[in-house]
Amino acid sequence: MTLLLVKTHMSYKGFLEKIKACNTTNIGDYIPFIIDQQQHGWIKPVFAKKLAAWPEIFILNNKSVRLADSIQGFKKRSEAVDEATHKLVQQGVIKVHLDEPYPVTAGDRNQAVMTLDRSAVPYFGLRSFGQHLNGFVRKSDGIHLWIARRARDRHIAPGKLDNMVAGGLPWHISLEKNLIKECAEEAGMDESLARQAVPTGTISYLAESDKGIKPDTLYCYDIELPDDFTPVCTDGEVESFELMPVNKVMDIIHDTGEFKLNCNLVIIDFFIRHGLLDPDQEAYAELVSSLHQ
Amino acid sequence: MTLLLVKTHMSYKGFLEKIKACNTTNIGDYIPFIIDQQQHGWIKPVFAKKLAAWPEIFILNNKSVRLADSIQGFKKRSEAVDEATHKLVQQGVIKVHLDEPYPVTAGDRNQAVMTLDRSAVPYFGLRSFGQHLNGFVRKSDGIHLWIARRARDRHIAPGKLDNMVAGGLPWHISLEKNLIKECAEEAGMDESLARQAVPTGTISYLAESDKGIKPDTLYCYDIELPDDFTPVCTDGEVESFELMPVNKVMDIIHDTGEFKLNCNLVIIDFFIRHGLLDPDQEAYAELVSSLHQ
Repeated sequence: MTLLLVKTHMSYKGFLEKIKACNTTNIGDYIPFIIDQQQHGWIKPVFAKKLAAWPEIFILNNKSVRLADSIQGFKKRSEAVDEATHKLVQQGVIKVHLDEPYPVTAGDRNQAVMTLDRSAVPYFGLRSFGQHLNGFVRKSDGIHLWIARRARDRHIAPGKLDNMVAGGLPWHISLEKNLIKECAEEAGMDESLARQAVPTGTISYLAESDKGIKPDTLYCYDIELPDDFTPVCTDGEVESFELMPVNKVMDIIHDTGEFKLNCNLVIIDFFIRHGLLDPDQEAYAELVSSLHQ
Repeated sequence: MTLLLVKTHMSYKGFLEKIKACNTTNIGDYIPFIIDQQQHGWIKPVFAKKLAAWPEIFILNNKSVRLADSIQGFKKRSEAVDEATHKLVQQGVIKVHLDEPYPVTAGDRNQAVMTLDRSAVPYFGLRSFGQHLNGFVRKSDGIHLWIARRARDRHIAPGKLDNMVAGGLPWHISLEKNLIKECAEEAGMDESLARQAVPTGTISYLAESDKGIKPDTLYCYDIELPDDFTPVCTDGEVESFELMPVNKVMDIIHDTGEFKLNCNLVIIDFFIRHGLLDPDQEAYAELVSSLHQ
């Protein structure tokens, strides 16, 4: 096998730790959020009690929170819950209303049954979606990856390392269009270059915050870049970019906490797909399957 | 995105059906098989009753079958259960003893706690491991895949389509060595060519037969082949090979049952990793995650 780049002395323990760090949820602490007889999210009992103020919208018992069956259809569901969300913001239960509708779905993002403001998504434990792009260059000594350093003024993960392009997915924009937009904003790529990105699958994990569960699905992409391309950030999210040999990226991910947590998983998936990890190593199969939770 | 080859009018329903066909198990029909306080397999209650004949080896209750804690260590466990396996063959409960030790593991194949004869593996519902290789050629009109037609005299899936190289994994041979051996036997590849195969991850599924549950993990590989290479079967497993345009392979997998069941999953994973499926299509993320069960 073309394992020239594999450092077979390296255990994969540090990779497994990074995946576990994105899957910290104890599901037993939550109760299901049900729409139309199907579970869509997970709610903390303490938040469920707040929802009891709207018995015409939320049907509560000890085992679940159910959206009232009398509220049918995409628009009516979205409006009813958004009204409650606004009041929860007034009550100080939810910090802010962002006016960014996110899809509510038990399957893919294009199978949504309603929308919910982005700010409320973790409280209802709903799956959210993102896109991450690995930008790489093939050199005579192997693959090099373009790695971003996040700006120090970010709310999330200031100063941490990041994928070349990465972002959340608002409602009602296709993956294709959103990726082209993010490639322009975050790396200064024109549309014709961005269209050379190759979709390579998804990864998923079950994170947790003080707000609740955050199940995430990230759509992953690779782009092989020409030698003379240098990414330029145009929206202030990134402080700088560095083209790193893949072995250096491997060491950083395995041995440090330098990367924004979920980026570790996107790049471990990149290592696997490109044959940079050795399946004869202990826990290789566990590594692969744990990227899909 | 480089979706030139994607037939966006095609739904992915036929792909999901193929994945479901490899995941037919109703886990509620089985009880756990436990070694050293950790679950390793799933056993049918009717088979558990047969194991009651060896109370010094198998500790039974209604909820589980446990390997006696008095039997400690890799060698002693393997010998004790192999003795019972031989007697189960004499009793006609298990058809045959194959003298092929398989690893018994709750994790990767190199984390085994004992071995068990291959013939007994499905009765204990233990995970087994295989290797599948996608052989492909890049032409001006896109990717072409080398597809095998299985010999008509095979016990398993006679006459069905198959990956270029595919095989089960015996105990105590590395993935690397076994792949080189299978590449020689099944496709007439010399070692230097076989070593160009790139490991790309795993897929897993939970199949079921009249014997019991068969959880499988397949280590997947890609090899990009030169134009002038033609695979030649040397061990009688394959009747013929055909180099097919990837769109033709997509149609066959989506619309027919021509492929051996688990090969569908290996090739769907190939489509995903090579950017041949469109993430904006319904159920794309479900497709990816359902390849890891």
